[in-house]
This record gives sequence, C-alpha cells and structure tokens, in this order.
Amino acid sequence: MTPTLLLALVLAQPLTDWRQPDPQNLLYVELPAGRVVIELAPRFAPAHVANLQKLAREGYFDGTRLYRSQDNYVVQWGGNGKPARTAAAALPAEFEISLDAGMPFTPLPDGDVYAPEVGFVDGFPAARDAAAGMAWLAHCYGMVGISRDNDPDTGSGADLYVVTGHSPRHLDRNITLVGRVLSGMPLLSGLPRGTGPLGFYEDEAQHILILATRVAADLPAAAQAGLELLRTDTAAFEAHVEARRNRREPWFHRPAGKVGLCNVPLPVRPVS
Amino acid sequence: MTPTLLLALVLAQPLTDWRQPDPQNLLYVELPAGRVVIELAPRFAPAHVANLQKLAREGYFDGTRLYRSQDNYVVQWGGNGKPARTAAAALPAEFEISLDAGMPFTPLPDGDVYAPEVGFVDGFPAARDAAAGMAWLAHCYGMVGISRDNDPDTGSGADLYVVTGHSPRHLDRNITLVGRVLSGMPLLSGLPRGTGPLGFYEDEAQHILILATRVAADLPAAAQAGLELLRTDTAAFEAHVEARRNRREPWFHRPAGKVGLCNVPLPVRPVS
Repeated sequence: MTPTLLLALVLAQPLTDWRQPDPQNLLYVELPAGRVVIELAPRFAPAHVANLQKLAREGYFDGTRLYRSQDNYVVQWGGNGKPARTAAAALPAEFEISLDAGMPFTPLPDGDVYAPEVGFVDGFPAARDAAAGMAWLAHCYGMVGISRDNDPDTGSGADLYVVTGHSPRHLDRNITLVGRVLSGMPLLSGLPRGTGPLGFYEDEAQHILILATRVAADLPAAAQAGLELLRTDTAAFEAHVEARRNRREPWFHRPAGKVGLCNVPLPVRPVS
Repeated sequence: MTPTLLLALVLAQPLTDWRQPDPQNLLYVELPAGRVVIELAPRFAPAHVANLQKLAREGYFDGTRLYRSQDNYVVQWGGNGKPARTAAAALPAEFEISLDAGMPFTPLPDGDVYAPEVGFVDGFPAARDAAAGMAWLAHCYGMVGISRDNDPDTGSGADLYVVTGHSPRHLDRNITLVGRVLSGMPLLSGLPRGTGPLGFYEDEAQHILILATRVAADLPAAAQAGLELLRTDTAAFEAHVEARRNRREPWFHRPAGKVGLCNVPLPVRPVS
C-alpha cells in the first residue's frame, strides 16, 4: 500500500471519532435470553460505581432476580435484601456533582423543560446549571440507576433499575444514576409488565434469573462485547445531532428543527 | 339520607370531573392476550377516524397481524396491503388543524422543546402555535397513528402504530395521529422486539394475531370496557398536573418544579 493510499484511508475513516469504553467500566449482565451491557459513569457516581464493581466481583448478582417491570417506567433487579460479603450496604447519595473547568460538556441547542442546559458528558445524557455550579445525569431511556429507600443515603448498587419508558426526568437529582445500557435493551424493555403495584411481579415464577454479572475487564478479551461509541466532541456527533433535529429522509414532510435530550441516542457499534 | 348528607356526598365526589368517552370513538382491539382500548380524536383527524370506524365495521382487521415492534419507538399492525371492501384506501393527511376560538385547550406551564405551547385538547396531548393559527396532536407514549408511505396522502387507517418508547416528537405534523390507548398498553409495549430493520419481525411465526377490532358502540353495554377519564378543565386535573410537577411523596428529595407534556398521563379509571 502506498503512503498516499494509506493516508486517504485514514482520512476516510476517522478512527478517533469512536472510543472503546474502559472495560473496568463495563458490566455484563447475563440473562437467560442474552447479555445486557452497561457502561458505568464514574465521574458522576464514583462511590456507587466502585461498589457495583465490588458486588459484581464477589458474584453478588449471580442467581438474583429481576422482579419488577413497570410499564412506561423501569425494570428493576438485584439482591432485594440479600447481604453483600465485601461491598457496602449503603452509600451517601451521588445525585449531582460540582461543575469544574475540566468537565467536557457537549451542549444541545434546543433547550429543555427540566434543566437550564442539557447535553452530553463522557457520552452520557446530562444537565448542568452554571449558576448553581452543578451537573447531573439525566433519566433518558436506557439509563441505569441505584434503587434506594426513602432516605437518600440507602442505595448501594445491590438493586438496580433501567429506564424502559418515556424519560422520567422528575427522578433527576432524586436518585443516583450510574450509567447506561449500551446493548441488550430489548431483553429488558420487552419483558412482560408486572401486574402488582409499581409493576412488581406478583408471582415469583415470573422473575427473570440473573445468571451472572461481570466486570468486562475480568473476562478474556475474546469474551468481551467489543463495542465502540461515537465521541460527542466530534464533527460526526454534531452531524448526528443535526440529522436528528432535521430529519432529511424522504419520508419526512416537516423536519422538526429541534431535538430533545432524550431523542439523541448515542451511536454505538461493534468494533470494526 | 338527609339533604345535607346527600349534598356533602355530592361535593365529596365531583362526578362531573370525569367523562365517559363516546363509544362511537372507542375501538376495541382484541388480541389473544386481551383487549386494547383506543379513544379516537375526531376533532384532529375526522376523515381518518371515520375511515377507521368503517374498517372496523367491515371486519377489516379481524385476522390481521401485528408485525412490527421497534424498541423505544412503536408497534405496528394492520392489513399490510390487504384491500378494504368499503373504506378508502388512501386519505389526505390530517397532520394539523386550524385553531378556532371554540377549541378547548388546557395549557401546561413549563414549556416544550418542540412547540410554542403544549397542553391538552379533548384529553389528548397536543400543541398549538397561536402565531400560525394551528394545533396538532403530540407523539406521547400510547398515542395511536396511521401508517403511511413517503407520500403524506397515503395513509388510510388500514395499518396503525402505537408509541411504545420515549416520545418521538419529531413525528409531530409528519404523520396523522388519530387517538390514544386508554388501556391495554402492556399488551403492546411488552411484546418482543423485532430483530429485522425498523423492528419488523423476521419470522411470520412471531406475528401477533389481531382477533377482532370493534367500535364500542356496536357492542352490548355489558361488553363495553366502562372507562372514564379525568376532564382537563377541572381543578382536579390542575391538582394532578401540580402533583406531577412537584412530587410530594416522602421518597422524593427534590421536586422538579416542572413537567413535560408527555410526563402528564391522563387519569383513566373504571366507571364506578
């Protein structure tokens, strides 16, 4: 291959637009029907992320159950009271973090009902309030959070939920978000809805078994999912947002000219 | 019962806060797993609603299939090309209507990313643009629309979709909405996701049979669903919106103080 041809190929495929997530921050949740891949957000919830890694590494989730599927809201699973061996049983809430000058924030241009400004941080949908000096993750479809009791400081990661309906943004800053599902959402969103209060399954026979939950870094490379994500600080991401704001496919009659935060899914693809 | 006690009971149960939908505007979609009830919106899509009633009355849907379930988006079902006997095969688009002075509009106070103003009309989530003099239905969870080809005037009602994911508001004014699911959403939202492009099922064996679709008015009263809806021009609805804007349950740490249009579900209950 000539240097010129090689250069042309590199220019045609801007590899740096995509990043491979740190396997320390990937959880593989193995269900009978397949794998759910979660990317964790240590910037926003360092203590909960560390505790989740501990829980996964002590095999805490293996054999636990998914016991709740509330329509247009969330699914929830975990130990449901089972004690952990090495992980903390409760942690202080991590609902928001201080804005600092080094925080990369890719803003969206069209505003938001719930927050002064919305966009992406580390690939996660997020909001910030410059006046208050705070930033937080936003409850979009596929976001993963930490179940808690009424006291804000009662979550640990032993029980998790994933948003499976219209974004419940009223939960923002009320509960600790720890990450987002990168693949496998249909394994959760397509589950039968529980018929008990809050979508809890009324019959234990309806529970979905969690076969195992592992940190990707602990698996051999061949067993890892091999996903990469579009970086949000790229022209490609800017074009992606614009394509969502103004849909140009022939089917569309009137491009919206606007886009809401939770209508911008982050592009994810298998590593090429 | 004394007149005073009777009066107290009437005041305690403001029956006029609730309305029973016109059974001419209710469709019952009978699936093997149960009934989906749809309320139609003739103010916004009179021609499509009339055609849907014709299709239902000629038994068009009976034996058709639900053939698409796209994650975080829609399910879709219908004749998929089967000709109708009495109903029109294509209708002019009904994407929006003129604002008129008589249109009841219950506005929401917190703005919207996609439209100048949002609220409720006849109990349906809607938007309006006073400057343009137009109003339209909004793609919230559970809204029902009319599938079409690229040409805007190619829908008829022979194929329908229901929003099962985060609100795809970019579809507003791009496709004709005809109503909303009042009950039975879990029968649609919990279906397995199709693995073909756009969530189409790849194997016909995965299709869900539509046993029948009927106009409620054509059924004996005893076979009707008996649902009633909270009117939006009531103090009770105003209190409902405020309760969604500022959640006061003990679990909540920081009430949002805002609410998005698609985060205000219309209360529906069995007729008491």
